[in-house]
Amino acid sequence: MKEVIEIQSTTNEFSVFVNGKPTLVHKINSPMLYVGTGKSSVQMYRGNFDISDYIEERIPLRKAVVSSLAEGIKVSFSETEGTPVELEMEILKKDIDRIDVTFNKKEESNNERCWIRVAADEEEKIYGCGEQLSYFNLRGKNFPLWTSEPGVGRNKETYTTWQADVKDRAGGDYYTTNYPQPTFVSTNKYFLHLSTTAYADFDFSHKDFHELHTWEVPESLQIVAGSTYLELVEKMSEVFGTQPELPEWTYNGIWLGIQGGTEVVEQKLETMLQNDVKVGAVWCQDWQGKRITSFGKRLMWNWIWDKDMYPNLDQKIWEWKEQGIRFLGYINPYVAKEGHLYKEAKEKGYLATKEDGSDYLVDFGEFYCGVVDFTNPQASEWFKEVIQTNLIDFGLDGWMADFGEYLPTDVKLYDGSDPMKMHNLWPTLWGSINRKAIEERETKDDLVYFMRAGYTGIQKECPLLWGGDQSVIWEKDDGLASVIPAALSSGMTGCGLHHSDIGGYTSLHGNKRSKELLLRWVEMAAFTPVMRTHEGNRPDDCFQFDGDEETIKQFAKMTKIYTELAPYIRKCVKENAEKGIPVQRPLFMHYEQDQISYDIKYQYLLGKDLLVAPVYEQGKSSWEVYLPEDKWVHLWTGDTYSGGHHEVRAPIGHPPVFYRSDSSYRELFESFKLND
Amino acid sequence: MKEVIEIQSTTNEFSVFVNGKPTLVHKINSPMLYVGTGKSSVQMYRGNFDISDYIEERIPLRKAVVSSLAEGIKVSFSETEGTPVELEMEILKKDIDRIDVTFNKKEESNNERCWIRVAADEEEKIYGCGEQLSYFNLRGKNFPLWTSEPGVGRNKETYTTWQADVKDRAGGDYYTTNYPQPTFVSTNKYFLHLSTTAYADFDFSHKDFHELHTWEVPESLQIVAGSTYLELVEKMSEVFGTQPELPEWTYNGIWLGIQGGTEVVEQKLETMLQNDVKVGAVWCQDWQGKRITSFGKRLMWNWIWDKDMYPNLDQKIWEWKEQGIRFLGYINPYVAKEGHLYKEAKEKGYLATKEDGSDYLVDFGEFYCGVVDFTNPQASEWFKEVIQTNLIDFGLDGWMADFGEYLPTDVKLYDGSDPMKMHNLWPTLWGSINRKAIEERETKDDLVYFMRAGYTGIQKECPLLWGGDQSVIWEKDDGLASVIPAALSSGMTGCGLHHSDIGGYTSLHGNKRSKELLLRWVEMAAFTPVMRTHEGNRPDDCFQFDGDEETIKQFAKMTKIYTELAPYIRKCVKENAEKGIPVQRPLFMHYEQDQISYDIKYQYLLGKDLLVAPVYEQGKSSWEVYLPEDKWVHLWTGDTYSGGHHEVRAPIGHPPVFYRSDSSYRELFESFKLND
Repeated sequence: MKEVIEIQSTTNEFSVFVNGKPTLVHKINSPMLYVGTGKSSVQMYRGNFDISDYIEERIPLRKAVVSSLAEGIKVSFSETEGTPVELEMEILKKDIDRIDVTFNKKEESNNERCWIRVAADEEEKIYGCGEQLSYFNLRGKNFPLWTSEPGVGRNKETYTTWQADVKDRAGGDYYTTNYPQPTFVSTNKYFLHLSTTAYADFDFSHKDFHELHTWEVPESLQIVAGSTYLELVEKMSEVFGTQPELPEWTYNGIWLGIQGGTEVVEQKLETMLQNDVKVGAVWCQDWQGKRITSFGKRLMWNWIWDKDMYPNLDQKIWEWKEQGIRFLGYINPYVAKEGHLYKEAKEKGYLATKEDGSDYLVDFGEFYCGVVDFTNPQASEWFKEVIQTNLIDFGLDGWMADFGEYLPTDVKLYDGSDPMKMHNLWPTLWGSINRKAIEERETKDDLVYFMRAGYTGIQKECPLLWGGDQSVIWEKDDGLASVIPAALSSGMTGCGLHHSDIGGYTSLHGNKRSKELLLRWVEMAAFTPVMRTHEGNRPDDCFQFDGDEETIKQFAKMTKIYTELAPYIRKCVKENAEKGIPVQRPLFMHYEQDQISYDIKYQYLLGKDLLVAPVYEQGKSSWEVYLPEDKWVHLWTGDTYSGGHHEVRAPIGHPPVFYRSDSSYRELFESFKLND
Repeated sequence: MKEVIEIQSTTNEFSVFVNGKPTLVHKINSPMLYVGTGKSSVQMYRGNFDISDYIEERIPLRKAVVSSLAEGIKVSFSETEGTPVELEMEILKKDIDRIDVTFNKKEESNNERCWIRVAADEEEKIYGCGEQLSYFNLRGKNFPLWTSEPGVGRNKETYTTWQADVKDRAGGDYYTTNYPQPTFVSTNKYFLHLSTTAYADFDFSHKDFHELHTWEVPESLQIVAGSTYLELVEKMSEVFGTQPELPEWTYNGIWLGIQGGTEVVEQKLETMLQNDVKVGAVWCQDWQGKRITSFGKRLMWNWIWDKDMYPNLDQKIWEWKEQGIRFLGYINPYVAKEGHLYKEAKEKGYLATKEDGSDYLVDFGEFYCGVVDFTNPQASEWFKEVIQTNLIDFGLDGWMADFGEYLPTDVKLYDGSDPMKMHNLWPTLWGSINRKAIEERETKDDLVYFMRAGYTGIQKECPLLWGGDQSVIWEKDDGLASVIPAALSSGMTGCGLHHSDIGGYTSLHGNKRSKELLLRWVEMAAFTPVMRTHEGNRPDDCFQFDGDEETIKQFAKMTKIYTELAPYIRKCVKENAEKGIPVQRPLFMHYEQDQISYDIKYQYLLGKDLLVAPVYEQGKSSWEVYLPEDKWVHLWTGDTYSGGHHEVRAPIGHPPVFYRSDSSYRELFESFKLND
C-alpha cells in the first residue's frame, strides 16, 4: 500500500511527510519547536475572559539529535550546540496513516510555553477547532482556544459588540467560543489533534507554517491522514467517539421553549397543537424556578422541580408523555447560594474553594453560585445522582445541560489540579456527569441532553450540541448566519449533531427579535437535526412563536416539513452515530474537486442529498446560492439546476433548499414541491 | 561630592546605581538585555497605523563578560556559556550625574529586536515620552512610540472612537500621538533617553522593571540624574536644546483662526476689535486656497498665496501689521498633485518614490500628495526656499507647520535610508526645514511657527507646539481635558511651549462644538502661552468665537486677562528659553514632597506662581481643585486657601486659578480680583 505517512531523518534533521507533503519538519534553520516562558494574566468577568500574556523568552530549539526507533524516531532538542537538552520527542508511526508524537520536557527545564510549527502550503485551508462561529476556513487568522462566553456581537466593528464591551466587558471576538478544541482538519487531507488542556492559540496566519502555541509543553499530538474528508471524519470518530442516535420522539416535532408555569405551558401547547404545529416536546428552562435580574429572565439555579411555578408538574409530565409530548428541563454545573443543593454541597466539601479554603462564589450577573468540583469523585457522584433523581426519575426526558465554561482560574480543586489546566476540560467533565447519569438508567435511549460548552472528549459526552447564545440580529458574527459555520466546524471536530435556539437568544443593547428573524430561523431549523425555540433572555423584547396567526401557521408548516423529512434526517443521524459523518456537512465533503466550495461557510449539505442555503439577511425575497456541479432540484418548485451561482426566489417559508436529482430519497423530496 | 551615579561590577555581573537605586542591572538570572527577531506588518491609512509584530525569537543574553574601562565598563553579552557574543555594550560615566551606554551588535547577529530592562521600584512613577494625551504618569501601561495621527476618540470605550474606527480606521488609542519620544523621567530622579528612530514600545507595566523595546539594537542610551525635577529638565535642555522666546507680538492678544478670504477676515477682525477683543494675529490656514471633501473643509496643499480666495492679501498683510495684527498662514511637508509645487518637485526628483521609482502618492482623504524627500539635501533646500519666498518674504509672521507623521514605510528615499527608521524622525526633519528658513532671515525673532508632530530633536526645531486635533467633546482622552497631560508630558520631554485649538477641531461622528465647550476652552487658553482659535474641520458644526454677543464678550474678557498676564507669561517663556523649565509645569515640580501631586494630570502650574485647574466637564458651576500645601489666593475672589481638596465656584469665565500668596507678581494677580 502507498505510504500515507513517511518519516525521514538524518542525524540532526527530520521530515514527516503526510500524503507526500512535508508536515513536521526540523532543520537547524527551520526549527520545529520553540520553547519559552511567560507571565499571564487571566481575569474572568461573568464568563468573559481578559487574557494577556507577556512572553519573556521564546527560544528556538535548533539542535536536534535524532535516533531511530522501531516505529519511528526519537529526538533530543536543545537550543544549540553545547546547551542542555530541553525536551525529548518521539514520533511513532502507529499505523500506515497515523503518527503519535509525544513530548517529554526535561525536569530541569523552566519552559512553560511551547510553539510547535507544522509545515504548510500557501493554498492550504484549515477547518475545525471546535465550534467556530465567525470563520469556517480558519486559514489567515489565529484562534485562541479557551472555553468562555462566546461574546455578544463578536465583531469589534459592530455597535452591539461595542455596547456589550463597554457595559459588560462581554463583546467577545471572532474566536471566542463555548467550545474550542485543539484539533483541526487540513486540506492536505489530515487532521491534527494536540493533547493539551492548557490555554492554547492556533495560529494559521503564516504562509509556510501553522504555529500551535500552548501554555505548557503538551503531552502529545496525533496526525491522522486520509484520502477523503469522509474518511478523515470517520477516523476522527475512532479517536474521539461518536454521538448516539437521537431518541425517536425527537422527530415528532418541535421542542417548544416555554416559561411561566404549568398553566402557561398548557395554554401555549394547546394553541400550537390546535393549529397543527407538530410538537415533540415542551422545554421549560424555568422548571426549577426563576429569578429576575437586570439581564432579564434568569433561573433559580437549584436543580429540582419548583412546585410553585409548576404546580402538578409531577403528574402533568406523564400526561403529556402519553399525548406524545415530552418534557425537557434545564440544569447546569453550578448551584445557587440560596438553594438547598448549595448548602448540601458546601457541607460535604463538594464545591471548589478559594486558595485558603473559603467559599468561592462566582458572579453570574447579580447572583452568586458555587462550582461543583468534578475533580472530587464524591462530588461527581452526588451531582450525577441529582440528575438521576431530580430530573430523570422525576420524568424529564431531556434537558439543557448549560454552561461549563466558568471555571475560575484561581480556585482550589479537590485533586490539587491547576485550574488553568482544568478550565478547558471542564465542559467535558460536565458532559460526562450527564452521560453517566443516563447510562445507568434503562430509559437511556429515550433521553437526550444538549450542551453548548465543549472541549476534547465532548464527542462522547454530549449527544447533541446547540450553538449557544446568538444575538437576535442579522449580523454574521453573532446572528442567524453564525449558526452555520458553528455547525460545520463542530462537525469537522467530531460533533455531528448541532442545532440552535430558533430566533436567537440575546436581546440586549437595543436588539429585539423581529418576526422576520424568527421566521427565517425556523425555516432554517426545519433542515437541521432538531427544532427548538427559545423565548430569549428578555422575552418581552422578542417576537414569539405564537406572536400572531401567520407565525403560528409558519410554524405549523415548517414543523410538518421537518417531521416528513424525519426518515432522511434519521438516516443521517445514524450515519453520524456509526461513522462520525456529521449531519450538517461542508459542501466540499462531497464535492472535493470543487474549489469554490472550500470557502462556502453559509451553506451546508444536510446528509449527502440536500443542500441548504439559509436566508440570513432581512428583507430578502430572493437569494443567491452556490451549487457544486451536480444535478440539483429546487425543493419547492421542482426546477432543475446544474452547478454555479444561481439566484432563486426565497420568500419566507421557502428557504433555498435543493436535492440531488439522483438521491435515493427523491420521492420524499418531491413531495415538498408546491402545487401552483 | 556625593556619587549620583555609581557603577559596580564583577566578572559576570554589574549594577549601575542612580541616586542610590539599582537601575541598570545584570545578573545571570536577571539579564539586562533580550534580543530576538520578528516579522512586522505596518499598514498606513490616512496617517493611522495598523501595526502588528510577530516575535519569532526572544532570547535572554544571560552570559555577560565584564571588563573595566577608564570611565566605566565594557560588557560582552551572549546567550549562555559557549555561545557567540551577540553584542557589546559600554557604560561610560560621562559626568558625575550621567552615563552614556552604547550598544554594538555583532555583524553576524541577526537580531533586530531588542528589549532593555531598567530596574524599577513598585512606587516609582514615570513621565514624558513626548506628548501623551491620555496619561501623565505612564506607570502601569506600555506606550508604543510611533508618530501618527493621534486618533479620534482615543478610547475604545467611547462611541466616538468606535465610530471613527469603523468608518475611518481612525479611532486611535490611549498611546497614539503625533509626538512620541523615547525619553522619560522617573521619580527616582533621573531621565533616560534612548537613541533610536526605530519603532519602539516602552513598557512601564511591570513591577520590578521597565522594558524598552526597539525594532533594532539601538545606538545608545543616556541616563542623567538630578536631585530635583527642576534640575532634571534643565539638564534635559542641555541635551536636546530649548525653544527661543516667543516674538513680542504674540502677547498682543489672541490669534484668530479665520477662513474664507480677505473680506471675511476683515469683517470678523473688525467685529472682534470693535468689541474690545485683544487680537495679536489672524491665522488663515486657507490662505493658499481650499478644497472641500467629505471630511469637511480642507486646504489646497500648494504653498503659495491664493489670489482668488485672498485678493489683495499682499497689501492687506502690511496694513494689518501696521495695525498691530500679524498674519499667519499654513504649510505642511506634502504637495498636492494638482499644484505647481508638486510638478516642480517631481521633475527635480525631490519626492519620495515607490520602490520601483514611480510616483508615490499618499491618500490624505480624497486627495493625493507627494512627500517632499528631506533626505535629499536639494529637496530640503528647495522647500526651505519655498517657505522663505512664499511665506516669510510674502509677509507672513508665522504659520502652522502641520503634519509630518505620514511618511509611509514602503517609500524609497533619496539617501537609501530605511523608511521604517526615518518615519519617526520625519517630524524633526520637517521642523528643521522651518527653522533653517527663518534662521536665515533678519526678521527671525519676529517669526514663529507651530507644530503638532515631533520626535527626539524637535526641541530645537520647533519653537511652539500645539496639541494637534482634539475632538470637540468633553471626554478626557480626546477633548478639552486631554490638552493638559499633553502640555505636561511635552514639558517633561523638553518642549516647554504648548497651546491648543480653542474649542477643539474634530467635529465628526455626530460631535458638534457647543458654546459652552468653546467658552471653557478659551478661559483655559488665557492661562497658556498662546491663545488661538480654530473654526473646526466642519465649521458649520462648530460654535464660533463670534457666535453670539455673549461669546464675543467672553473673548474680550479672556484676551484682556491674557494680555495683562503677559509680563508674567513672558517671564516664564524666558525661563524656558534659558533653562528648559516648561511654562506649564506639573504640580510636583514645585512640590516634590506632595505625594498626591504626582497623580494630578488635569491641573498645572503656570510658571511657579499660578495654579490652573480648568473645568473640563459640561454644566458645572463649581469645581473641585487640589492645592498642594502652600498659601494660595483665589484669583477672582481673593479668598485664601491652604493645601488640600477644595470646591470652588467656577462659573463660565472664572476658571479655577490660584496664585501663591508670596509671589513676586502678587500685585499683578491681585488686579484680576473681581469687584463685587
